[in-house]
Amino acid sequence: MTPSAPTPLSYEQAGVQYDLIDPLKVAAQHAAAATAPHLAGHGFSEVAASRGESAYVVDVGPFYVASIVECLGTKTLVADDMQRLTGKSWFAGIAQDTIAMAVNDLITVGATPLVVQAYWAAGGSEWFTDAQRAHALVEGWKAACDTCKVAWGGGETPALAGIVENGRIDLAASCTGLVNPKPRLSLGDALAPGDAIVLLASSGIHANGLSLARKLAERLPQGYLTEIEPGLGYGQALLAPTTLYSPVTEALWAAGIPVHYAANITGHGWRKLLRHPKALTYRVHTVPPVPPVLRFIQQQAGHDAAEAYGTLNMGAGFALFVAAENAARTVDVARTCGIAAWHAGRVEAGPKALHIEPLGVQFSGDSLQLR
Amino acid sequence: MTPSAPTPLSYEQAGVQYDLIDPLKVAAQHAAAATAPHLAGHGFSEVAASRGESAYVVDVGPFYVASIVECLGTKTLVADDMQRLTGKSWFAGIAQDTIAMAVNDLITVGATPLVVQAYWAAGGSEWFTDAQRAHALVEGWKAACDTCKVAWGGGETPALAGIVENGRIDLAASCTGLVNPKPRLSLGDALAPGDAIVLLASSGIHANGLSLARKLAERLPQGYLTEIEPGLGYGQALLAPTTLYSPVTEALWAAGIPVHYAANITGHGWRKLLRHPKALTYRVHTVPPVPPVLRFIQQQAGHDAAEAYGTLNMGAGFALFVAAENAARTVDVARTCGIAAWHAGRVEAGPKALHIEPLGVQFSGDSLQLR
Repeated sequence: MTPSAPTPLSYEQAGVQYDLIDPLKVAAQHAAAATAPHLAGHGFSEVAASRGESAYVVDVGPFYVASIVECLGTKTLVADDMQRLTGKSWFAGIAQDTIAMAVNDLITVGATPLVVQAYWAAGGSEWFTDAQRAHALVEGWKAACDTCKVAWGGGETPALAGIVENGRIDLAASCTGLVNPKPRLSLGDALAPGDAIVLLASSGIHANGLSLARKLAERLPQGYLTEIEPGLGYGQALLAPTTLYSPVTEALWAAGIPVHYAANITGHGWRKLLRHPKALTYRVHTVPPVPPVLRFIQQQAGHDAAEAYGTLNMGAGFALFVAAENAARTVDVARTCGIAAWHAGRVEAGPKALHIEPLGVQFSGDSLQLR
Repeated sequence: MTPSAPTPLSYEQAGVQYDLIDPLKVAAQHAAAATAPHLAGHGFSEVAASRGESAYVVDVGPFYVASIVECLGTKTLVADDMQRLTGKSWFAGIAQDTIAMAVNDLITVGATPLVVQAYWAAGGSEWFTDAQRAHALVEGWKAACDTCKVAWGGGETPALAGIVENGRIDLAASCTGLVNPKPRLSLGDALAPGDAIVLLASSGIHANGLSLARKLAERLPQGYLTEIEPGLGYGQALLAPTTLYSPVTEALWAAGIPVHYAANITGHGWRKLLRHPKALTYRVHTVPPVPPVLRFIQQQAGHDAAEAYGTLNMGAGFALFVAAENAARTVDVARTCGIAAWHAGRVEAGPKALHIEPLGVQFSGDSLQLR
């Protein structure tokens, strides 16, 4: 029982205003770039091409060190509401989401994630007294580390009354890894016309677009308990844990398949396929099936295909760019890891643009401003 | 004009209840430790002695990789209040505080910090529209990176309405470094009776004890504008940026002075001198001068010496344990870096305990439970 003629809701209306953040981001990026020469004093150097990529890479001689910190975002607000509605904790999945935010970014540069640190900042000490929830968070965190074969190094569990809202928790993860051996570096040097685009399935919304998804829930008479298909509630579907892609990138290396470039499809949806600065045209001929929860959001928000694919992952959580002759094997390796994959398109010479041909959708090169 | 007979205020009364957090911490520590074997699959191994220390260390062959994520805590609440009172932003110092939390921990294991990542989670996009404050945060962050000779790799600037309170920001930093060459590792293997304790001066409260300090401000008729000495207000004194100690540890290595062990004196105050698991007695014969702001807090909170030194840094922000014959040179190296230092005591055979002789204060080994 859902409204049949939804009022459109844009991502900006849902409360995230990137233009207010961006001037600070630009200033921070300039200041950050100016610190790179310090590495020379230690005998090392920055890999400059990693500036603006998903993880920062330093050349330390025998290999590269990659590092990152990533925030989960507001998915915990859905988990909190769902705990009230269902009486069970959803924080095991939330833990996986948080680690996925860090690990899935770190692997884009070709790094093997080695250590994850936990950042669990609660609104007060009381947060940790819900034993079921705390246990779920710990167990889910460990299980995600096990999937990614990373060591959980430690972390922080501050109680931040006055900063984090009472009853809430701000979750993030840092991750450190190595690009080893060095030819595994996948910052796009080898990205070229003729390469294949392989898309890996997402499990649902992952952890981007939740502000929009939460706004939509407010408009639904049954909120998160609205059935989006028989037996599957909206809230439950939203909370499907983010797929962890590091088993795939590790298996590809083991199989001898070099990755030319990789993109974690998070905020800005498929526009992330335009991430690399090279002027190249990305032509998609095969679009993965859309998970029911994303189809539902698109419908409820009144988004056309361009707005949906420019905001959400729409079923593709990660993109791999490989030599055309390796496309089929790449798909096979992903499937062996239990993750559906599609040889979805190709890289062509031409102006920077993404063409999603089956949908008649195009994004120009300037539709993604990350640098 | 301050109250002359203050009502005592304990740290627990100030709102931080460690016993509510600790069961979760213990569960998390056990789960984290169980993930260490994953490193073997990548050809590496954990340095087990780093579990429970301030940074996590992995042996990757030619050197060790150390990593950490650290939260600033609630010091921003003081900066926010002071901005309202003074019209200027205090976030340049806050940025240094945040980096200090991470860097000062990372160096305890003997690591050279190489990369810092910024975690700036605001209560809403609006936080970033205060250009003066945003500029101060960026400039202060860069300046602290310059002092520590680290590269600012990047970071996260999420807007977390509903999780972080409106108008507030949750600040943290992750840091990755190398212990290079490997003999620089300072996890305490060499810590032994006869070693000297060298204490490095703090700049004030640093970033621990702020919950208590803020509670006290509420009881002062003039709040943060209360003068604690002529020309120095309470709020201004609290916001003295945390001292960055990595220049000292780097200079000690360059001078050929091995550090046997190091402790960052943060939460739990001088009880952090008991951090290492070895059964040793730490006897302090020289107590550094107490910064006016810490003396003021001790007086206002009605703390005796044991409670003050067991909670706050009381003028000593970092402890180095070195061979006795290197104590004087260690002090000299620190002073060359612009940081006052004192040969403050010695390590003795005996039961685990800390004796602060000039104050008649003793802490037993079980007064610090970090593992």
